[in-house]
Amino acid sequence: MALKTLSAKAAAALDKELMSTGAFSIDQLMELAGLSVSQAVYRVHPPARGPRVLVACGPGNNGGDGLVAARHLRHYGYLPTIYYPKRSKNELYQRLAKQLEDLEVPFVDDFGSAIKSTDHIVDAIFGRLQHRGSPNSADWVTGFSFSGEVREPFPSVIKALEETKVPVTSVDAPSSWNIEEGPPKSGLGSSFMPEYLISLTAPKPLVEHFNGRHFIGGRFVTPSIAKKYDFEMPAYQGLDQIVETGPTGQKL
Amino acid sequence: MALKTLSAKAAAALDKELMSTGAFSIDQLMELAGLSVSQAVYRVHPPARGPRVLVACGPGNNGGDGLVAARHLRHYGYLPTIYYPKRSKNELYQRLAKQLEDLEVPFVDDFGSAIKSTDHIVDAIFGRLQHRGSPNSADWVTGFSFSGEVREPFPSVIKALEETKVPVTSVDAPSSWNIEEGPPKSGLGSSFMPEYLISLTAPKPLVEHFNGRHFIGGRFVTPSIAKKYDFEMPAYQGLDQIVETGPTGQKL
Repeated sequence: MALKTLSAKAAAALDKELMSTGAFSIDQLMELAGLSVSQAVYRVHPPARGPRVLVACGPGNNGGDGLVAARHLRHYGYLPTIYYPKRSKNELYQRLAKQLEDLEVPFVDDFGSAIKSTDHIVDAIFGRLQHRGSPNSADWVTGFSFSGEVREPFPSVIKALEETKVPVTSVDAPSSWNIEEGPPKSGLGSSFMPEYLISLTAPKPLVEHFNGRHFIGGRFVTPSIAKKYDFEMPAYQGLDQIVETGPTGQKL
Repeated sequence: MALKTLSAKAAAALDKELMSTGAFSIDQLMELAGLSVSQAVYRVHPPARGPRVLVACGPGNNGGDGLVAARHLRHYGYLPTIYYPKRSKNELYQRLAKQLEDLEVPFVDDFGSAIKSTDHIVDAIFGRLQHRGSPNSADWVTGFSFSGEVREPFPSVIKALEETKVPVTSVDAPSSWNIEEGPPKSGLGSSFMPEYLISLTAPKPLVEHFNGRHFIGGRFVTPSIAKKYDFEMPAYQGLDQIVETGPTGQKL
């Protein structure tokens, strides 16, 4: 079966289209994306298996998805903890953080210590495309530059994710991976293989390098968008906001 | 068991609080409210029982919830049709309508004819409190004035809802009902009793007059908000965005 993945460039164009002619607001899309992430976590790691979830949030949209997911997880009965070292000044992300504070969800500063007392980890550091805020360089499109240049504390966090035995669900891309090419060939992140990955809207080429359980989320794509960008409409069932697929999107 | 309902005044204050100190945007809240409505419809009328759903939308927030619900219903495989005779100029509602148009969901002008070819009806005409747009009079708080003064085409629509044999799910309040006092004592709407009602955030006093199946939706209320406004946190299960309760909110 032919691969139906969405290149970084196409994914950026699709998101731009959703928010322009598609008439979605970023609030809406992020709410639905984060809801999808929370449902994937529930599917692979129901709260009875251990309610503690450490949600690591980066400064961009991927981090925003993580903040939304954490709120829903709290409502499902999980006990999330947020690691959010570079808080965005973006008004939306500030509001999403406030919504968590109002649920008494703790924010922690020490990732190394937090990772030792959690049952599951959500990696929402890098991955989703950046549309707002800075930096808006070509490098930033993948959320992680081709040159591998990422400032502390993120290298330490990626190293900890690489080494932990706690299962990890990555949002849209395992942090450190390149959207097109997958994991770095060597060095930091080259051996990072999360147990679970949820691709938002459609799988990206990196999924060819992923060998865990794979989900697609973001049940807002229209058939006409899927046709235009040449990918299959995910076969969502019932009320589900996610669907489990083979890593390249095929039905299981 | 003591009734734990939310007066019209308290409900208005709660919604205002969610969007101020609670840091929610109207986009977020409406997305989650509409998602709840879509899940209630799925619960009482799964698509296999008949995919056609007529969604009647009023000019305010209740109508916005209906537009969001219709989009989710389309994604679940329903064939919604929208009746939206007084389109709001509000930018959010215009975007919600555009999102439906992009899914090729038809908008119809003739309610009397549409009601004859549907399997289920969502009544999202009046009910939810108004926060934006006009009119913002005291009467408008209930979406339907105490004096019963509502302009065409809405009286005809309410009459058709009252007379139809097709099951109806009302959003937050059966249209024509008063939030505090329930159905009008006589005249238009006095015999309107929808089969299903979904109360958003918490039941309002009108539920004492309702004798169908009742749901609560809007899984974003924090325990501190519930405590402050003196109602029980609904006992949502799993990933559900709705919970079925007795009409006064008690567990079934």
